[in-house]
Amino acid sequence: MFENIALVGATGAVGRIVLQQLQERGFPYKQLRLLASARSAGTIVQVNGQSIKVELLEPSAFKGVDLVIASTPDEVAMEFVPWAVKAGAVVVDESGYFRMDPNVPLVIPEVNPEAIERHQGIIASPNCSTTQMVVALAPLHRAARVKRVVVSTYQATSGAGLSGCDELIESTRGALNNEVITPSIFAHPIAFNLIPQIGGEKHAGYTSEEMKMVYETRKIMGDDSIQVCPTCVRVPVAFGHSESILVETERPLSVEEARELFAAAPGVTLVDDLASKRYPMPRDCEGKDDVFVGRIRKDISGGNGIAFWCVSDNLRKGAATNAVQIAELLVKSVSVA
Amino acid sequence: MFENIALVGATGAVGRIVLQQLQERGFPYKQLRLLASARSAGTIVQVNGQSIKVELLEPSAFKGVDLVIASTPDEVAMEFVPWAVKAGAVVVDESGYFRMDPNVPLVIPEVNPEAIERHQGIIASPNCSTTQMVVALAPLHRAARVKRVVVSTYQATSGAGLSGCDELIESTRGALNNEVITPSIFAHPIAFNLIPQIGGEKHAGYTSEEMKMVYETRKIMGDDSIQVCPTCVRVPVAFGHSESILVETERPLSVEEARELFAAAPGVTLVDDLASKRYPMPRDCEGKDDVFVGRIRKDISGGNGIAFWCVSDNLRKGAATNAVQIAELLVKSVSVA
Repeated sequence: MFENIALVGATGAVGRIVLQQLQERGFPYKQLRLLASARSAGTIVQVNGQSIKVELLEPSAFKGVDLVIASTPDEVAMEFVPWAVKAGAVVVDESGYFRMDPNVPLVIPEVNPEAIERHQGIIASPNCSTTQMVVALAPLHRAARVKRVVVSTYQATSGAGLSGCDELIESTRGALNNEVITPSIFAHPIAFNLIPQIGGEKHAGYTSEEMKMVYETRKIMGDDSIQVCPTCVRVPVAFGHSESILVETERPLSVEEARELFAAAPGVTLVDDLASKRYPMPRDCEGKDDVFVGRIRKDISGGNGIAFWCVSDNLRKGAATNAVQIAELLVKSVSVA
Repeated sequence: MFENIALVGATGAVGRIVLQQLQERGFPYKQLRLLASARSAGTIVQVNGQSIKVELLEPSAFKGVDLVIASTPDEVAMEFVPWAVKAGAVVVDESGYFRMDPNVPLVIPEVNPEAIERHQGIIASPNCSTTQMVVALAPLHRAARVKRVVVSTYQATSGAGLSGCDELIESTRGALNNEVITPSIFAHPIAFNLIPQIGGEKHAGYTSEEMKMVYETRKIMGDDSIQVCPTCVRVPVAFGHSESILVETERPLSVEEARELFAAAPGVTLVDDLASKRYPMPRDCEGKDDVFVGRIRKDISGGNGIAFWCVSDNLRKGAATNAVQIAELLVKSVSVA
C-alpha cells in the first residue's frame, strides 16, 4: 500500500475523474495531495467531505509522496515527473511524453499487466484512442495474431480537455443563433463540423495522434510487426471516442469466434444486435469504464479480416480509469513483494 | 433539347436544389412542371420570378412531359417512374429503387457518361455516399486499377431529408437546454452522438447503405472485381458527407501521383496541406458542387494503398448536381442525335 499519494492536474478533465474513481473504487491511501499549475493552485476541492487545498506543482511538493497519478500536457510532465521520481515516488503518467521511452512500461492492465514490473519510477498510460482499440484487439491478437489494422476514429472534444468541451458547447450555441464563434482550442469551428486532424504533422502525412496509434499499439501488444493505418478525426461529440476498425489476423476468425472472444475479454462489453438497432454509441458509453464493441462483421473486401465498431469514454478507460487501474496493479505488486 | 420537363419531389431537400441548379446552370426547357405528393401539392413555388403551383403526382401528370428529374423515396419511385416512362418521358431518378436494374444505367457524368446511351427510359443517379467516393476513385482506377477499398463514412443528417436536419437542430437545442427530445427521424438521439447504422440490415451484418457502396461502385466503374468494405455512420453534421478511404490499387501509386490524378480529375478539388491545417471539412464544402479530397497519404500498414479523406455536399454532387448533370448529358445526346 502507498501512504502518501499525489494527483497532478487534479482540476483538469481527467484529474477530476481520477479523484472520483479513487474514492469510488476504494483506493487505499493515508494522505492525498492535489497538485496543479499556478492557475489552479489555491482552489479548494471537496474529497469525501474533506476540503483539500490544491498545492502548487513544484519540486518540493513531492516530499514524502510515494505514488503520483498525473494528467498533464506533455511539456508539464517532462518537467515535473523527474522531480517526483527523484523524491522516490512511482509516477503513473497519462501524458504522451514518456510513453515510447524504452525504460518506461506502457500499460493497459487488461493487456500487459506484467509490464509494470519493469518500471524504473515511471509507468505510462497510453493515448485514449489507442487504449480502447488495444483493449478490443488484445483478445483477437491472443487467439489469432493481429497482422494489420485499418482504423478511422470519431473523437470527442473532451480529448482536448474541459475547454474543448466548452468550445463545442459555445460554438454549437453560437451556430444555432447564427453567431460566429472564433475557435481557440480547435484549429477550425467544431460545431456541426468535422476536423480531420488531431495533433501536428508527425510522419509521412500522418498526425501525431495517428502515429500514437501505430507506435503505442506495437509497444503495448509487444509485437512490432503489427501494422496500423490510422485516420484520426475530431467530431462534434463531447464525450466518448468511436472507432471504425478493420483487423486482419494471421489465422482467420469467424464473426462468431470474434464475438465470443470480445464477450469473454476483460474490460469489453459486447453490444451487437443490428436487427434490434443495438450497437455502441457515445451517449450510451459516457461515464462508463468499459470498451464497447459492436457491428461485428466479416470483411467483405477480400481480406482476412473482421470489421467492428468500438466506443469508449475517452476520459474514463481512455485516461482516468486506466491510470487508476495501473495504480491498483502497483498496490497489488507492492503487497505481494 | 427537352420541351417539357417535370421535377418530382420538388419541395424536398434535394428537389429544391435541383430547381435552383436548373436556373443557375441555364438548363434549357420550354415548360417546367413541379410534382409532389398530396402533402405538398398546391404549394406555390417561385421560379425565376414566376409562380408555379406544385401539382399532384399522378399518372396523368406526365402527359406531354419528355424529361423527369425525380428525388423521392424508393417506394414512391417504384410507383410513379413507370407512369412517366409510359408517357414517353426519360426519367433521371435519384431513388435507390432502379439503380441495380440491369436495364437502368447508373451514371456519374465524370465517370461513365457513355452509359446513358443504353437507357430504356430510366437513368439512375447513385447514392450520395457512393457518388463522392467513386468520383474520387475513378482517376485512380483509370491509372492504376482499384482492387480494394476500405471506407468509413461520417454522414450528414440532410441525407435523411429536411426533417433529418430539423431533428439535428431541435435535438441539439434540446440537449443544450437539458431537455430530452425523442427522436423520430433517426433511431437514436443524434445531438452530440454518433449512430453507426444507416438503413436496415442487408447482407452479412452490413446495412443497406453500406451495401450500396459495394454494389453501386462496381456497377458505375464497370468492374465487378472491385472489393469494398464499408462502415456507414451518421454524425451530428447537417450538410456534407465525409469519408475516410483506404484504396489499394493493382499498380502501386505514390502520394505524388495520386495527388496529380486527383488534381487533374473533373469534379475533384484538392485541399491537401496538413502543415497549413488545410483539408476538406463539411462546413467548407456546403453548397459546393465538387468532391473535395485531402489528407492524402501512403498506406503505412503494409498494403499497397493510398489513404485519403473525401468530403462533398451530399445534397449537391451526392444528389441534385449529379442528376442535373445527367440531364445535361441527355440534352447533348439528343442534340447530337
